[in-house]
Amino acid sequence: MYTYEELYKLFSNHLGKQSFSKNPKELYEPIVYSLSQCGKRLRPIFTLMACDLFEGNIQKALPQALAIELLHNFTLMHDDLMDQSPIRHGKETVFKKWNPNMAILAGDALYVLAYDYILQADLEILPDILSTFNKTALKACEGQQLDLNFENRKIVSLADYIEMIRLKTALLFGASLKIGALIARASTEDTQHIYEFGINIGLGFQLKDDLLDLYGNEKVFGKKTGLDIIENKKTYLFTKAMATADPETKELLLDYFHGKELPEKEKIRYFRKIFDKLDIEKLTNDAIYNYLNTGLEKLDMIDCPEERKQTLKNLAHTIISRKK
Amino acid sequence: MYTYEELYKLFSNHLGKQSFSKNPKELYEPIVYSLSQCGKRLRPIFTLMACDLFEGNIQKALPQALAIELLHNFTLMHDDLMDQSPIRHGKETVFKKWNPNMAILAGDALYVLAYDYILQADLEILPDILSTFNKTALKACEGQQLDLNFENRKIVSLADYIEMIRLKTALLFGASLKIGALIARASTEDTQHIYEFGINIGLGFQLKDDLLDLYGNEKVFGKKTGLDIIENKKTYLFTKAMATADPETKELLLDYFHGKELPEKEKIRYFRKIFDKLDIEKLTNDAIYNYLNTGLEKLDMIDCPEERKQTLKNLAHTIISRKK
Repeated sequence: MYTYEELYKLFSNHLGKQSFSKNPKELYEPIVYSLSQCGKRLRPIFTLMACDLFEGNIQKALPQALAIELLHNFTLMHDDLMDQSPIRHGKETVFKKWNPNMAILAGDALYVLAYDYILQADLEILPDILSTFNKTALKACEGQQLDLNFENRKIVSLADYIEMIRLKTALLFGASLKIGALIARASTEDTQHIYEFGINIGLGFQLKDDLLDLYGNEKVFGKKTGLDIIENKKTYLFTKAMATADPETKELLLDYFHGKELPEKEKIRYFRKIFDKLDIEKLTNDAIYNYLNTGLEKLDMIDCPEERKQTLKNLAHTIISRKK
Repeated sequence: MYTYEELYKLFSNHLGKQSFSKNPKELYEPIVYSLSQCGKRLRPIFTLMACDLFEGNIQKALPQALAIELLHNFTLMHDDLMDQSPIRHGKETVFKKWNPNMAILAGDALYVLAYDYILQADLEILPDILSTFNKTALKACEGQQLDLNFENRKIVSLADYIEMIRLKTALLFGASLKIGALIARASTEDTQHIYEFGINIGLGFQLKDDLLDLYGNEKVFGKKTGLDIIENKKTYLFTKAMATADPETKELLLDYFHGKELPEKEKIRYFRKIFDKLDIEKLTNDAIYNYLNTGLEKLDMIDCPEERKQTLKNLAHTIISRKK
């Protein structure tokens, strides 16, 4: 069994060996830039871990893990442009550093390149991998569309919010693991279990993201907190607050959410006060641990020695209890 | 053998049977809109014709033809946004009718959907089709990047221009035919011949596009002529003129190209006068017919009865001698 650190290194080495610096350089520079942003590489590492869990050949999973990372970076590049987000991982996003056209075109090319790696799968599993990959990418587009739609809606239900992050974020976590399982020729049942494990961890991951944005410790978190409130994002915290509050508090939330007259710090303080009164931090944490537990139940159902599941369990816990 | 009209009908019926009207509707409406623009459907019909030439099963070529059409529409949707082109086929382009985000996201979804149709290929030919499709899409991105780069360059050589349209336009013509040949299990040699036939017809197609923009008969052409000159596009006409002109005329061309002080009609008249003096219409027509003839030579080399090649020959001639 490989550890997270070993898989991180394996994946980074594999990524480093690819040559994306081609011509025209204007097209490939943003691709190299985007792929060099060192995140946690959770999704490709999930692919490798799932493959390893079912005793598959890690070498065969590397191209597929890379395809997953390219897909992820493609969605980030386009989403950052659509959302007008200037910063990611502490660096300028592609449309800011270059221009919108570069973000569109380099994003397109990233996604095309992903299929070159998908294509390296053994022929017998190629259709399954390709179909999983496509479905996930299409659902990510649908999720992004819902997210954009939410900007123009006054009220978003909790169920609508969960559906949006399921499509936009969680299914990719699930698919990353599922593709690893397919490469290792896991049984249909086990492949489905690990897919659902991933979806649940993905949902928990996104809720934790929302939580840290307000309740993170700025020194550990490394970013200012409360940005989602400043940007009027309908996160889990806000959606949950709206679902929990009495009619009067609901009106207050809506008033201050849509009226932008408050100074930033005051607005954050104001929302925080209401959220605290409604116990939103605890309620969100409960939801996060619910997803973690549901995910772990799915992992339990997988038919393989318990000790092989330990690295995935650890990673799930790390993701859920992360401080940044 | 099917005629162009029969294949057009077959393809339109197949396209009509697909249901792209899904939720969220904001994502799928631009897709339905884009696919309903009735162009000549040259690329998917090329796929069907190539399959028919080699006595393949047209039914099996329909999904692949659709994938080609989706890829084509995806590139149009993104290119129109990048080029800020407000009109296509006499209708507003997606970014104009909706907004830039919709053009990005619906374009992405179109491209993802294309792979669902690619996936329907017989397993034994899936890798070849997938690899041809990917390569073509990546080269189209590279071509679009070169096209964007040209906007910022004072001088573009004829060779650079041809390379750009080869990547951006001609390779897709080639790939459309190649994929049809792959479905019909044509020999490697014949598949290569029809690919090159397509590339040459694609180059001729684009040069004819450039030619009609200035020398088209407005009544037949259905659009105003001279738009490329107004928009300072470095077309084949301009590039050829720059390659042919004496140093003095070259300077004049560059001055009027980059100085925008002339009224539109006068600017067109001015360029037309220089182009006429340099015999650009004839030189462009010569180049177009050179590509046609090179293409037809490739078609001649294909090992199948001459009479089976007639519909492809006719279509090539129609494309090259079109008036709009």
